[in-house]
Amino acid sequence: MGIMGRTDISKFRIADVIAKKRDGGALSPEEIRHVIKAAMIGQAQDSQLGALLMAIRLQGMNEEETMTLTKEMVASGCVLKWPEEWSGLLVDKHSTGGVGDKVSLPLAPALAACGCKVPMISGRGLGHTGGTLDKLESIPGYSSQQSPEQMLQILTSVGCCIVGQSKNLVPADKIFYEIRDVTATVDSLPLITASIISKKVAEGISALILDVKFGAAAQSPTIEEAKQLANSLVDVGISLGIPTIALITNMDTPIGRCIGNSIEILEALECLEGRGPEDLRELVLHTGGYLLWLSGQVDSEAQGAEKIANVLRDGSALQCFRKMLEAQGVKAEIARTLSSSSNLGKTTLREELTVSKAGTVELIRARPIAEILNDLGAGRKKATDVINHRVGAELLVRVGQHVEKGTPWIRVYYEKPLLQDTQRQTLQNALCISEQPAFTPPSLIRDVINRQCKKE
Amino acid sequence: MGIMGRTDISKFRIADVIAKKRDGGALSPEEIRHVIKAAMIGQAQDSQLGALLMAIRLQGMNEEETMTLTKEMVASGCVLKWPEEWSGLLVDKHSTGGVGDKVSLPLAPALAACGCKVPMISGRGLGHTGGTLDKLESIPGYSSQQSPEQMLQILTSVGCCIVGQSKNLVPADKIFYEIRDVTATVDSLPLITASIISKKVAEGISALILDVKFGAAAQSPTIEEAKQLANSLVDVGISLGIPTIALITNMDTPIGRCIGNSIEILEALECLEGRGPEDLRELVLHTGGYLLWLSGQVDSEAQGAEKIANVLRDGSALQCFRKMLEAQGVKAEIARTLSSSSNLGKTTLREELTVSKAGTVELIRARPIAEILNDLGAGRKKATDVINHRVGAELLVRVGQHVEKGTPWIRVYYEKPLLQDTQRQTLQNALCISEQPAFTPPSLIRDVINRQCKKE
Repeated sequence: MGIMGRTDISKFRIADVIAKKRDGGALSPEEIRHVIKAAMIGQAQDSQLGALLMAIRLQGMNEEETMTLTKEMVASGCVLKWPEEWSGLLVDKHSTGGVGDKVSLPLAPALAACGCKVPMISGRGLGHTGGTLDKLESIPGYSSQQSPEQMLQILTSVGCCIVGQSKNLVPADKIFYEIRDVTATVDSLPLITASIISKKVAEGISALILDVKFGAAAQSPTIEEAKQLANSLVDVGISLGIPTIALITNMDTPIGRCIGNSIEILEALECLEGRGPEDLRELVLHTGGYLLWLSGQVDSEAQGAEKIANVLRDGSALQCFRKMLEAQGVKAEIARTLSSSSNLGKTTLREELTVSKAGTVELIRARPIAEILNDLGAGRKKATDVINHRVGAELLVRVGQHVEKGTPWIRVYYEKPLLQDTQRQTLQNALCISEQPAFTPPSLIRDVINRQCKKE
Repeated sequence: MGIMGRTDISKFRIADVIAKKRDGGALSPEEIRHVIKAAMIGQAQDSQLGALLMAIRLQGMNEEETMTLTKEMVASGCVLKWPEEWSGLLVDKHSTGGVGDKVSLPLAPALAACGCKVPMISGRGLGHTGGTLDKLESIPGYSSQQSPEQMLQILTSVGCCIVGQSKNLVPADKIFYEIRDVTATVDSLPLITASIISKKVAEGISALILDVKFGAAAQSPTIEEAKQLANSLVDVGISLGIPTIALITNMDTPIGRCIGNSIEILEALECLEGRGPEDLRELVLHTGGYLLWLSGQVDSEAQGAEKIANVLRDGSALQCFRKMLEAQGVKAEIARTLSSSSNLGKTTLREELTVSKAGTVELIRARPIAEILNDLGAGRKKATDVINHRVGAELLVRVGQHVEKGTPWIRVYYEKPLLQDTQRQTLQNALCISEQPAFTPPSLIRDVINRQCKKE
């Protein structure tokens, strides 16, 4: 008995688990469970978590380990429970983060208008990518802090909510993420997968679509890396019982015309009014179309996209958005009249830059534009930075369009700090003009990872 | 200026240094210096140190990085300063740790008797390897805590001291070691090298010999690994200005006859009386001989070994040992009369195991014996364990000797806990008997790493 007891304890020494992963071994479910429990109750030292995460970053994890890690992270906290009759209706979307990516804003209410329940938990912006919650908080009164009971109420009456991460859901992710952030272990396929999927599983949803971006302004620079991540996400999502599809989308040029916070809300409203830029509309129709198909509400993705187009056209998606805002704290008189022509905090200072030579717009580099806007206050360099929601930019030309020298191509909205000459130069370099003839830009969606039994 | 300032700060972000090593890059001297400074002033998070140490463990460090790491670790604390006229006389030895390894005990006073100054800083035992300080502390009154001023006084009057690590010397090593210990990053060539050599450099010595062990009871199982470590240690020692030689020695069978603490002191005294087991004596003569040659006090290693043999024979080494004990707190009447026949705390319980079949002793496995003695209280499983100095074992046969069935081969000294049947069985399995004829065992010294210009 004594020796058995000792064996059991030593079997779960964290240093031994670290050594196993250091040497490229596959961790057992018990070992993964033990580490997460130890992290939760403070029995794993920070140095041990740092070392283990680095070992995982360098040695990887197989599909089963990643699945177990995800499952055990979910088990570290609560899982949202919804009424039985909603089963099959609960859907959500997650994007790996882009510039000008306001897809969630029209998508959630459009899905709600189609009869779905969308308990969307979003994040804030960090670095060059924006955050859905930051954008929504440019609407006076909007509150992202909603308890599970409040979420249930909003989903019952409106059908969708967009809220912040609750500390009761996947608390292990917060512990791990804070360490990954300072230990150069963020870019690990299994750790990214577990972090994303665990939070979606904890939402209690029945179908999930992932927008995995690649390109100069994405986490994955190449389409191959994006596909690798998408495959990992889809595999783990499905193995944990959630029908999951991933779109592989390009992120070199900003999505839509607007980049910032309040300015992106106005563009999302345009989309909800059945108008707005084609690339944004395309992403909303297809992510929505896939989710409606995936949850069995339509017979094909195309039928789903058509249904989304309808609720954008007939105003019912816009109504859901307005109701959601009201339910999440926005005053009725603001929520009920908000439209793309509303006067939603823009700066008084603005400046237009002009094209320096005639030609065709080949590319508008998203990353340098986002970085300059961050410097001007539109985003965060570190999590504690305060945002100026009014700062932003509007693209006045689109990819594929022929432009003349002197044509204004970007309008920057700023306050303090002022726009500097070096920043103007960086912005100018973000516009790529070629001598090729005007062209129709390709779809942002370059591939679909779909392992679901095809009904189409 | 603003941008320059920002560049300087970001150049030294610890997460960036971790990322560079994660990706297999070589860290610059500035980056290594920055990490150590940050660790010293508490600005590096434990999670970051854990991740960095794991990245170093998995990606390695080149010779220049290892040298810089060692140098910067020395710079984290004080370096001992000695009188100008001692330059060239200051020597020390370091062993990577073995079972029954009491070489330092006769060696330090023998070197002192030859006119050397030996400011030996030793450690305590952990796991299956013993610690020189633990052995010395079985002598009543012995104090390993000596300030640099006290060390100067003892070196002036006696010529040698054996003391514990001062917290002012290489404090960065303590920080790193505590993290390595729990993060499975102990067995990293550059980290082991920096830890060992930094502490020797901080002793202010002018010549160093390393006893790098290989075998079943050593840190390095194979001779190749031991040579790799020895080469790294010698390279870094020399590059930091200390003439350094390494012996590659076997550690399958215990050194000498005795394993424990007080019992090893008695065997060391035998050696100091010019007697004792041949393997122990051989190691003392050769490590001492190389050090006398390395510090330019004799013309060849053989001459040096001869000189050591003389001071063991004429009793002057024993006198130095006794004076050192007295200078380090042992009462004069004990210190001045201590000999191999002294009654230095042995247990009342003792048990002899006998040979189960006739043949030639081929091997006496050191590791299982040491592990059983640890269980009986002779050593530590964790740093806070308390030792019973009286527990130990004496080998009654030697490798190469012919034995008959029933010959007693080991005498175990124990108190509480009592010796168990499973432990008796483990001990019996440690004795390997073969059918080959009796033989003279080979020298424990299997190779010498010597890059010094040969005077021989």
